[in-house]
Amino acid sequence: MVQFDEDAVFRALADPTRRAMLERLDDGPASVTALAEPFGVSLTAITQHVRLLEHAALITSVKDGRQRICSLERTTLQRAEDWLAERRVRWDKRLDRLEQHLDHTEPTNRSPKGPTR
Amino acid sequence: MVQFDEDAVFRALADPTRRAMLERLDDGPASVTALAEPFGVSLTAITQHVRLLEHAALITSVKDGRQRICSLERTTLQRAEDWLAERRVRWDKRLDRLEQHLDHTEPTNRSPKGPTR
Repeated sequence: MVQFDEDAVFRALADPTRRAMLERLDDGPASVTALAEPFGVSLTAITQHVRLLEHAALITSVKDGRQRICSLERTTLQRAEDWLAERRVRWDKRLDRLEQHLDHTEPTNRSPKGPTR
Repeated sequence: MVQFDEDAVFRALADPTRRAMLERLDDGPASVTALAEPFGVSLTAITQHVRLLEHAALITSVKDGRQRICSLERTTLQRAEDWLAERRVRWDKRLDRLEQHLDHTEPTNRSPKGPTR
């Protein structure tokens, strides 16, 4: 079972290079060297990004001879997505209840702006 | 149209207090003062969190007399969710293609570990 650490996952996603690396890994597993190439950054910088992504369980990596091959960990993407979906769905339900409530409330009791939709 | 700034959104989500504030706002709009209460942090600290969440368009806020009322911006949650879903779905499709490819490949050509499922 992959650990889901929200802090680490969202922090890892909050960087354009790391998001681009995940997009690259969408094409399939890649070595750290291959990952570094399109970004024009040093291997050291990419290695640090790899560590952060791996710490967040957004990717996994395995040694293959002299190379380290990285793969996308879709389970973590799924769990981050679920986290967001859960909040959004709960919010939708509450908005529905708010609307029902407003339907039974005198117009003078309403806030001048009403709920933001 | 709410601007979707991935860096800002994921950075805002990468903090347990800010995520808890979003959960609190799931119960409906709340003043900054009310938001601060359960977290045992200063109003100044909460105001900074509010700014970050508002900058990420995860919440909106309006002045209501002496108070500032915050509301969840579900559109942004939806877009962050879509961003993740898009990567996950593409990855699923690629895994399917990889499986099809492996079905037509000699076992000796396979990597010793095979794809991570």
